[in-house]
Amino acid sequence: MSQNIYDRQDFFEAYSKFIDRSNEPVDDDLLWKRLRTLLPEDINGFDILDVGCGSGWFSRWAVTSGANSVLGLDISQNMIAKGRKASEARPGDAGKLEYRIADLDILPITLSDKAPYDLIFSSVAFHYLKNLEPLVKQLVEAMKPGALLVVNVEHPTYTAPKTPRVVEDKETGQKSWNLSAYHEEGERVVDWLAPGLRKYHRTMTGYMDIFLGNGLSLVKFLEWLPTEEELASGDIDDVEQYRPLFLMMSFRK
Amino acid sequence: MSQNIYDRQDFFEAYSKFIDRSNEPVDDDLLWKRLRTLLPEDINGFDILDVGCGSGWFSRWAVTSGANSVLGLDISQNMIAKGRKASEARPGDAGKLEYRIADLDILPITLSDKAPYDLIFSSVAFHYLKNLEPLVKQLVEAMKPGALLVVNVEHPTYTAPKTPRVVEDKETGQKSWNLSAYHEEGERVVDWLAPGLRKYHRTMTGYMDIFLGNGLSLVKFLEWLPTEEELASGDIDDVEQYRPLFLMMSFRK
Repeated sequence: MSQNIYDRQDFFEAYSKFIDRSNEPVDDDLLWKRLRTLLPEDINGFDILDVGCGSGWFSRWAVTSGANSVLGLDISQNMIAKGRKASEARPGDAGKLEYRIADLDILPITLSDKAPYDLIFSSVAFHYLKNLEPLVKQLVEAMKPGALLVVNVEHPTYTAPKTPRVVEDKETGQKSWNLSAYHEEGERVVDWLAPGLRKYHRTMTGYMDIFLGNGLSLVKFLEWLPTEEELASGDIDDVEQYRPLFLMMSFRK
Repeated sequence: MSQNIYDRQDFFEAYSKFIDRSNEPVDDDLLWKRLRTLLPEDINGFDILDVGCGSGWFSRWAVTSGANSVLGLDISQNMIAKGRKASEARPGDAGKLEYRIADLDILPITLSDKAPYDLIFSSVAFHYLKNLEPLVKQLVEAMKPGALLVVNVEHPTYTAPKTPRVVEDKETGQKSWNLSAYHEEGERVVDWLAPGLRKYHRTMTGYMDIFLGNGLSLVKFLEWLPTEEELASGDIDDVEQYRPLFLMMSFRK
C-alpha cells in the first residue's frame, strides 16, 4: 500500500501551514494558471475522475465549472474530511461531487457508476505510487474515446537525487541543483515538511512508456518553468532557477 | 548562420580523435542501439533526408538497408568530404546517396527532388541551431503523411548549465551534475574538445512546443540512460550516472 503521510500528524500539520488548497483555485495561483492550460476550455456536462484529489480543490472547481459528476479519490482521511467539510458550505456539490478514500496502489480501484469518464485529472499524486503502470491501464479503460488524462507530477529532475538539495560547488562557489541517479528509477525517502516522505522517482522515459504504452497520445507537455517576472517578484524560491519543479502533461485516448 | 566548428582545425582534429563515425554504425554502439529502436524496422524503398549528417554514417547505413534515396546535409566541409570519401569505396552509394553542404540555420534549405520524404533523421544537430522552429516547419512540410521524424539531441539537463560540469558538494562531498538555468533557453558557449563551442539550450517543453506545435505526434521518447551492465563495464563515463546525455524522440506526421 501507499504511504499515507497526510494522515501522519507531524506532516499534516506542517502541510496545512505550508499550503492551503481548501478553497477553489484562484487565477493567479502559479501552479493552477499553468495546469488550467492543459484542461479543456469547457467541461460542461463532463463526468470527471480526480485521482489523488487531496482536499478536493480541483473537484470543487470542476463542479463550479459545470461538470455533471466528479469522483474524488484520495488515501488520506484528513484530506477527504477537509474536502467534505468544504462541500458542506456548497449546496451545489450535493449529488454531483463524491469524495472517497482509496489507496491508489491497491488495484483495481473502485470507480463511480459514471465511468467511463470525459476527463481524468491527477495532480501531485502519481509520483507517490509504486504501481503506476497498472493504475494507468485501469484509468485508460475508464476513459471515453477522445477523453483527456491531465497529469501533474513532480519533475523527474526534482525526484532523481537521493538527497535532493541545492549545492555549492566546492571550487567555484556556484549554486546548482544536485542532479544525480537520474537513471535509477525507484523509491526515494526524503525529508520535506517532515522526515521520511516516500516517493517514487521515474525518468521522463519511464513516464512516457507508461502513458504512450497504454494507448494514449500526448497532447500537451508543460514543465513548471518560472518567468522572469515571477522570479523578480520574490514569490518564488531561488531554487526554481535551477530545475523545474513540476511536469504537466495531457494525453488523449 | 550557425557556428561551423567542425571546420575549425582545433575542433576537427580533437573530434576525429574522440570518435570515429566514418564507418557504418555497429550493433554494439551504445548510441546507435538505442536510436535504432526509434527507426522503422524496414526502410526498403524509403526516400530519406539526413539533417546534419556529419560524415554520413547514418546515410550510408540507410543505403545499405535498402533506401531508395538519401540526401545528407551538413554545414561542415570537413565532414562532407569524409562522407564523400567513404562513399567512393561503396559503388552502391552512387545515384542513391547525395551529400550536400548546407547551413541549417539559413532557411529555407534546399531539398532533393525526392521530397516529400518517408523518413527524416537528425542526430546531434538540432541543439546547434538557433532557428529550429522554422526549420522543423519546413521539414514537416517535406514529410509524406504518416512519415517519421527521428530526432536525437543533447538532453536539456545536459545543455542547461552555463558552465556544465560535475560538482562536489562543499558540505557532503557528494558528486552531482550542476543542473541550473534550466528555464533559460538560449545560447550556451562551452568548452568541449576545443574552447568556444556554441549551442542552444532548449527545455523539454521548448522542444515539444516546436514538434507538437507543427502538427507532429509523439511516437517514441527515449532518454540515454545507462544500464547497470554498461556502467559496470567501464565503457561509460561516471558522469552518465548523474544525468542523461541524449534525448531521442520519434514523431509521426
